[in-house]
Amino acid sequence: MSLNTFFHPKSIAIIGASNDHKKIGWQLIDNLKASKFKGKIYPINLKEKKIAGLSASSSIEAVRGKIDLVVMAIPAPFVVLEVEKCAKKKIKDIIIISAGFSETSPEGKKLEEQIKELAKKNKMNILGPNCLGMINNICQMDATFARTIKGKEIKKEHNIAFVSQSGAIGSAVLDWASNRNVGFSYFISLGNKAVLDENDFFDYFVTDKNTDLVVAYLEEIKHGERFMAAVSKLARIKPVAILKAGKTQAGSSAAMSHTGSMAGSSQAILTGLKRSGAIILDNMNQLFNLMRLIKKQLVLKNSDVYVVSNAGGPLVLTADEISQNDLSFGEFSAKTQKEIAAALPPLTHVKNPLDVLGDAPADRYQKSLAALLRDNNVYSVLILLTPQTTTEPEKTAELIGKLAKQYPDKLIITSFIGGGALSEAKKILAKYLIPNFDYPEEAVKALAQFLNYKKNLKDLSVYRATEKSALTVTTNAWDEQLDYLKSFTCLKEYNIPVADTRAIREKKDLAGLKYPIVLKITGPDFIHKTDKKAIYLNVKNEQEAWSYIEARKAELKNQNYFVAQPMLSGDLQLILGFKRDNSFGPILMVGLGGIYAEIFKEVELEVDDLNETRALAMIKRAKFYKILAGARGQAAYDIRGLVMLLVNFARLARERKEIKELDINPLLINRDGFTALDVRIIV
Amino acid sequence: MSLNTFFHPKSIAIIGASNDHKKIGWQLIDNLKASKFKGKIYPINLKEKKIAGLSASSSIEAVRGKIDLVVMAIPAPFVVLEVEKCAKKKIKDIIIISAGFSETSPEGKKLEEQIKELAKKNKMNILGPNCLGMINNICQMDATFARTIKGKEIKKEHNIAFVSQSGAIGSAVLDWASNRNVGFSYFISLGNKAVLDENDFFDYFVTDKNTDLVVAYLEEIKHGERFMAAVSKLARIKPVAILKAGKTQAGSSAAMSHTGSMAGSSQAILTGLKRSGAIILDNMNQLFNLMRLIKKQLVLKNSDVYVVSNAGGPLVLTADEISQNDLSFGEFSAKTQKEIAAALPPLTHVKNPLDVLGDAPADRYQKSLAALLRDNNVYSVLILLTPQTTTEPEKTAELIGKLAKQYPDKLIITSFIGGGALSEAKKILAKYLIPNFDYPEEAVKALAQFLNYKKNLKDLSVYRATEKSALTVTTNAWDEQLDYLKSFTCLKEYNIPVADTRAIREKKDLAGLKYPIVLKITGPDFIHKTDKKAIYLNVKNEQEAWSYIEARKAELKNQNYFVAQPMLSGDLQLILGFKRDNSFGPILMVGLGGIYAEIFKEVELEVDDLNETRALAMIKRAKFYKILAGARGQAAYDIRGLVMLLVNFARLARERKEIKELDINPLLINRDGFTALDVRIIV
Repeated sequence: MSLNTFFHPKSIAIIGASNDHKKIGWQLIDNLKASKFKGKIYPINLKEKKIAGLSASSSIEAVRGKIDLVVMAIPAPFVVLEVEKCAKKKIKDIIIISAGFSETSPEGKKLEEQIKELAKKNKMNILGPNCLGMINNICQMDATFARTIKGKEIKKEHNIAFVSQSGAIGSAVLDWASNRNVGFSYFISLGNKAVLDENDFFDYFVTDKNTDLVVAYLEEIKHGERFMAAVSKLARIKPVAILKAGKTQAGSSAAMSHTGSMAGSSQAILTGLKRSGAIILDNMNQLFNLMRLIKKQLVLKNSDVYVVSNAGGPLVLTADEISQNDLSFGEFSAKTQKEIAAALPPLTHVKNPLDVLGDAPADRYQKSLAALLRDNNVYSVLILLTPQTTTEPEKTAELIGKLAKQYPDKLIITSFIGGGALSEAKKILAKYLIPNFDYPEEAVKALAQFLNYKKNLKDLSVYRATEKSALTVTTNAWDEQLDYLKSFTCLKEYNIPVADTRAIREKKDLAGLKYPIVLKITGPDFIHKTDKKAIYLNVKNEQEAWSYIEARKAELKNQNYFVAQPMLSGDLQLILGFKRDNSFGPILMVGLGGIYAEIFKEVELEVDDLNETRALAMIKRAKFYKILAGARGQAAYDIRGLVMLLVNFARLARERKEIKELDINPLLINRDGFTALDVRIIV
Repeated sequence: MSLNTFFHPKSIAIIGASNDHKKIGWQLIDNLKASKFKGKIYPINLKEKKIAGLSASSSIEAVRGKIDLVVMAIPAPFVVLEVEKCAKKKIKDIIIISAGFSETSPEGKKLEEQIKELAKKNKMNILGPNCLGMINNICQMDATFARTIKGKEIKKEHNIAFVSQSGAIGSAVLDWASNRNVGFSYFISLGNKAVLDENDFFDYFVTDKNTDLVVAYLEEIKHGERFMAAVSKLARIKPVAILKAGKTQAGSSAAMSHTGSMAGSSQAILTGLKRSGAIILDNMNQLFNLMRLIKKQLVLKNSDVYVVSNAGGPLVLTADEISQNDLSFGEFSAKTQKEIAAALPPLTHVKNPLDVLGDAPADRYQKSLAALLRDNNVYSVLILLTPQTTTEPEKTAELIGKLAKQYPDKLIITSFIGGGALSEAKKILAKYLIPNFDYPEEAVKALAQFLNYKKNLKDLSVYRATEKSALTVTTNAWDEQLDYLKSFTCLKEYNIPVADTRAIREKKDLAGLKYPIVLKITGPDFIHKTDKKAIYLNVKNEQEAWSYIEARKAELKNQNYFVAQPMLSGDLQLILGFKRDNSFGPILMVGLGGIYAEIFKEVELEVDDLNETRALAMIKRAKFYKILAGARGQAAYDIRGLVMLLVNFARLARERKEIKELDINPLLINRDGFTALDVRIIV
């Protein structure tokens, strides 16, 4: 369903509109009027004839004109009936403000299910329930009940779309933005996400010309595969930044008691977020700071950062932060170098980061900056200032502001560090729409998040989820673990080389084996083979083999049986596996195997749409890559072979949807290639 | 030299005092007067008779009264002469503001050396040169030329001593503090640290009753061992927080060009900082936030944090941050649980972190908080608020303030998140001296730094540096590498078990060996044995051994020779080593050995005063500890034996000062014990 009418309604009905100033129904109509909404407003109230000066109707059925959007703020038990009425009137777009649904009780959950059904049947866009509403600043429509400070806005741009799963964070962000140069194109409070969720909005913003940055606060990502698809598509066009709460057990349990939502596996979420190409925000500070950075006109053809400062200490801290965030310092061109030198006292060291010295008056800043900005390769400039004895904060701010106006496509940001002596200067910077950060490290962090997003864009492809077609569950599983030999067969089907594995049930099954061999007992009672002493290494001959089998005869009931494998040794053991996440699909994992797997727990994770490029990147991130590439002067192993193996493994994970978990441990690596020695498949 | 007179002078002479408002000499006298300094002020100026209304003298020799402290703000070339004059007048305490010394030129460096000499000879305390000066708010003395906003201070407490190696950071901190509830007992700008450095001040603050928190910004820690001794002593009494700039290569090179100081090895610095027990600050944000937290009366008998919020989203983020910072959530006692439940709407989930719900009016906050604070086990409370429709920010702030007054020894902090709707409320919080943080994660971080400092105190012992007595350098080294057999002897002297190693120069040297053996070529041409294929494993008999030796005969010149060792195998290979840092002394290292040492580069570091407790802690931090402790149901190895080995190794590092670097790789571990198989000593 298109969201065009949802976002650009020509008429809005408010069910539950009220003259009582303490009620949400009043706040809604007050906000809508204050936002100078140009369409029709229909207050709906059973008793009142006039609300906030507008004539009211007793129900939407009584409204003559066409209603594009309905906003409901009535007690939960009445909502379903009103949605039905909307369906009858062919109204497709609804915002349900009311709380009292799945977040409170099983009864509420039932009501929410009914709403979902109605939406599905009638193809309706429903936002909420249990939300703050929606703002579209492009067509001047505030359909929230957020408390806003009216008439205080000095925003010049409305270019950020903000999507929040928390009403409280939404309120705080709106309030915070109201006295800063941060403007929202759209503000959406998701509430319980019964029908519309973040992904529907991400899809909408792809082609929206009014939005330069999409920011979302999320507690639950229920449809991870759809999320990766939507965000990766959007992120290729414009930056998307996500603050995902509930990263820890404690946070996740706080989220659960707060919204009833499951935070999900934090590793799966992080892997999915990375795949989506979103800027991953760690905390609220980063969320607010990033919003201050993104301007309409930015070009930024490189990731070099230039720093100008009158303060040595902060310059050092800034240089540290730039390094730690993988940004590069640009070098001055010969011409720029010369021009800057002319602006500084003799013998000053001219290099980036540039120290214009503690006694720098405003015009020294101005001249150095002017020289720097004239350089066509300079795009991002961070200017630091601390109030020293001869510093001229206001004049410096004014001159920076004027320069910034000359170069609207360059990113010019400041960190004026201090308190009272800088308050006027900070106002001047704000007047010129220059983002000023309290501390230089925060400026660098925001810059890094944006520049690194841009840098990674070239490798970002759109995630495509697989079809959700159900496959028949493979039978012959012990409880949930798939039979050992069948597990190997499954790997072979995807061209993953496995050790030659033969079931040994009778003595004659041992015929023709090449010794030494390994014997293993496999089956429902031998899920943990090491603990059960079910592995016999280096078995020298048939006699020895049979003696072991005889000794364990009593345990060979149910589906337990012996298998024989050749005794192989490898230079390196890896672990390769995946676990299917309910939201993000299979999360693939590769790491050092054997005993080191448990000790280091250092694995690389990826989602299931691995191609050769991303498989190679995954291996390169792993610490064992050094061995593969040939540590200590050794020749390299078959890295390309491993890449193909991973791609095939990913395909297995995508296609065999009946498999919940799969571990190959160890995957043996040596000069001849790769061999899966042991495998465990949970269906 | 005691700093008593330095900090509490009864009279101050200002050499270079001036009536010219653009000069530092005027700013100094103006600041000193404005600070209401109660002692005598003697302006010294060659020409002027009256400065800032005070009668001036032409030189300190002309001053009749006793001068306790001299402040100099004259061109560098004249400084040495004035210091000499001070020496003659037995003046022991000097602040040199003037720049133009080691930070600018070799000539300046010479002048600084002369000042050092004079100070040493005459036992003088000299601060600077190239500094901003010093403030002692306890006796109302501002002897800096920092620009200050006069008469604007609303500070109620002066309990933070701030020490800064950067004048610019110092200025920014003073300005920032001037409109916040942060008060400094002392402010010291270190400058070039020619004589007095941070350690002298740390020593002074140990017994200073006016200081509850010591904060230092440092770019260079020149005397690391002295630093660890001073800080660990101070940190046992009161919190010390250090922001060390120049952590990265880029930062360090920025610091070098800025102050001429070497940042030093970042790993050695971090290891030393940890040993010192200081709170390690990562950035300016943390520096400012910590200063706002520490109050005089705090008791805090546990590390539990209690959170109260009207906003679900921020609560989730806060819970995440608390977990990530190793803090614990306190549980409500049955009584508190009951009392809080009575304050909340029916069916509200009563647990910590506490959600008082989005519609919480002020009195709901008040009642829940009152119940919480009555509980004698509750010490640290973080209160979150976002401006929602029915929120009462001002009233809530007022009620929190009143409660905080009732419980001055508890830590009550807030994060009111938003903008304009909260500005009045934030002023009310400030009035009650309640630290309000922009974002809850920052409040948690500051709290964590303080609480984790307190938690770690019980294990903090005072670092004692070894005597700096020079030992004779061991001879018989190949260039800088010590002879192989002598290296083993050195280990044996410290009870470190080594493989039985015999030099093989003639065939008869092979007599009586137990095969298989390992042969290695050692000597100046075989420093990298693996690369030079100088290791023969598993040599089966004398004949095979001699054939290898014969084959390499041509290379056995200079001091190259063969050694034989028994062919040993172990369950685990470690690497154990140290590297002597110029500032912090030997930095010990232990990690997984063999090929994994190079791949994982995961080592644990420590300084040289290891005792058994700290050696055990070091091993426990290492990932290989899981193997030692008995992974996969195996028996544990001799952990106590390894602890003793480490303690002995640390003693070696402390005592054998001629050794610059030592690596044992591998140190073999098996059921019988430990064996150093290979060693490399650089002298």
